Amino acid sequence: MKIGIDLGGTTVGIGVVDENYKIVAETEMRTADCKTPDELASIVLEGTRKLIESNHIDQKDITFIGMGCPGEIDTEKGIAVAADNLPIEKSPFAKLLTETFGAPARLDNDANCAAWGEHMAGVSKGYKNIVTVTLGTGIGGGIIVDGKLLHGKENHAGEIGHMVIDIHGKRCGCGRIGCWETMASTRALIKEVEHQARYAPNSRLGKLIAANGGHANGKTLFIAMSEEDNMARSIFNDWIRALEVGMWNVINIFRPDMIVISGGISNEGETLLAPLRNAVGKCSTLIRAGRLGGNAGLIGAAALDEMVI
Amino acid sequence: MKIGIDLGGTTVGIGVVDENYKIVAETEMRTADCKTPDELASIVLEGTRKLIESNHIDQKDITFIGMGCPGEIDTEKGIAVAADNLPIEKSPFAKLLTETFGAPARLDNDANCAAWGEHMAGVSKGYKNIVTVTLGTGIGGGIIVDGKLLHGKENHAGEIGHMVIDIHGKRCGCGRIGCWETMASTRALIKEVEHQARYAPNSRLGKLIAANGGHANGKTLFIAMSEEDNMARSIFNDWIRALEVGMWNVINIFRPDMIVISGGISNEGETLLAPLRNAVGKCSTLIRAGRLGGNAGLIGAAALDEMVI
Repeated sequence: MKIGIDLGGTTVGIGVVDENYKIVAETEMRTADCKTPDELASIVLEGTRKLIESNHIDQKDITFIGMGCPGEIDTEKGIAVAADNLPIEKSPFAKLLTETFGAPARLDNDANCAAWGEHMAGVSKGYKNIVTVTLGTGIGGGIIVDGKLLHGKENHAGEIGHMVIDIHGKRCGCGRIGCWETMASTRALIKEVEHQARYAPNSRLGKLIAANGGHANGKTLFIAMSEEDNMARSIFNDWIRALEVGMWNVINIFRPDMIVISGGISNEGETLLAPLRNAVGKCSTLIRAGRLGGNAGLIGAAALDEMVI
Repeated sequence: MKIGIDLGGTTVGIGVVDENYKIVAETEMRTADCKTPDELASIVLEGTRKLIESNHIDQKDITFIGMGCPGEIDTEKGIAVAADNLPIEKSPFAKLLTETFGAPARLDNDANCAAWGEHMAGVSKGYKNIVTVTLGTGIGGGIIVDGKLLHGKENHAGEIGHMVIDIHGKRCGCGRIGCWETMASTRALIKEVEHQARYAPNSRLGKLIAANGGHANGKTLFIAMSEEDNMARSIFNDWIRALEVGMWNVINIFRPDMIVISGGISNEGETLLAPLRNAVGKCSTLIRAGRLGGNAGLIGAAALDEMVI
């Protein structure tokens, strides 16, 4: 039995995973109010301890603990170095977990864990070269080359959301101009929906946003499209075009066996994938939605010991 | 002793390479007038035979023959599938070379061979993750991950010149819009020099171009810059900016140990590299010019047998 931990800025998910990468027990703890690295560590350790105890698991049966963290990771030392939305300061999670629960532990970043989860137990199982594109607030990347995660120097590889596709475009949070995620992330789409709807408050989109307190979310556009709103369709088409440009960049650079689309918006399934595949056109790279949904990171973390380093 | 063959649209270079990857004998044959695959094959085979004979080499001492080809390659079968500027039609070069000279043979594409040459015997020796950027008519890429060339599906990886950096930019020969090579290749620079100089025929740049029959070449801009021509400096700065954007894309995706700049323009050395490093800014990825110059492809071809597949 293994433990997978998926640390995020709002919650941490902790799960017991069996030898077939099924989650047999899980728990979630809030991390959003954490103020110090010590507090965060004790939430993770206490949550894990309670999960083990409440499921009557013998600690000796735990063969591995894997953890996915946002931000900068030192995978070799098992240290979470820093993160934007969490009190992480060179937090030695691998050491803490091993000392507390007596099992070997590994850390990797959250996007890599999600990619690894889909590779070990999800849609990209059996393929060796895969790029996972996670659409959310930004665009995250998990790159698998020859069956191994590509970490790059200081674990900085995979920042595909900061690939510039519009040299004259909008300023990105990273300081560069025209990064892919400024145009093609879920957040970019939602912002564009809100912006465009201001010009057409009486459109279906405008009314949906008004009914939602003036804000769009990841579903607003898709609801309007299902009701055949032309403005919604037009915003969606522009977004697909930006998504496609970055997808082809990834294809031209890696020509992977598969690109896996993950993140909440991938739940839209073929509504998203069919137009995206159509925009990409003829290509030997498969384009698929992730199969593990929000569990990919947790399962991938629990499977980190399967990766030869 | 090994044979390295570097097939190009104008000439084919063939060399005998010793165990330290020094070229101990070489020859060059013209390929530009070749009309048929058979004719091309006989030029390659005849050239190799003559090189061996004229240097009194015993065929038994040849342990390996490697060949770099432009266009599409089937590395597994050792077949050159197709190329834009050469009569290649599923040409089985590996088989032909082995049958003729009795040594095992391998094929790879020319950009990969150049990257491999620099890795085995040049500037990136000792590093494991390297992206080689070849600036010329287009921008070619050779990607080494964990000490192995990244081929991708159907050997289509490494097309970094067709990474879009300007979604509203110029149409590229590949059919996409705003590919990196439309802005940052040596050809793009030369075209821009010619275009801008038309507006200022009395500038230093304008006069250099007029003196050269109305055309710029890869050195024109650098001559004008050395004479402190401001227009030349301004064109160069814009080009460096486009180059830097793509370089950072490569860095954000791979965070390699090193980016190797190759192609004729890399002979400009620090005149090119210092402003490029300055534009890239603080970064853990080293940026270096190739050390083997035009021999990188030939040497890399001869070293293809050193790559574990």
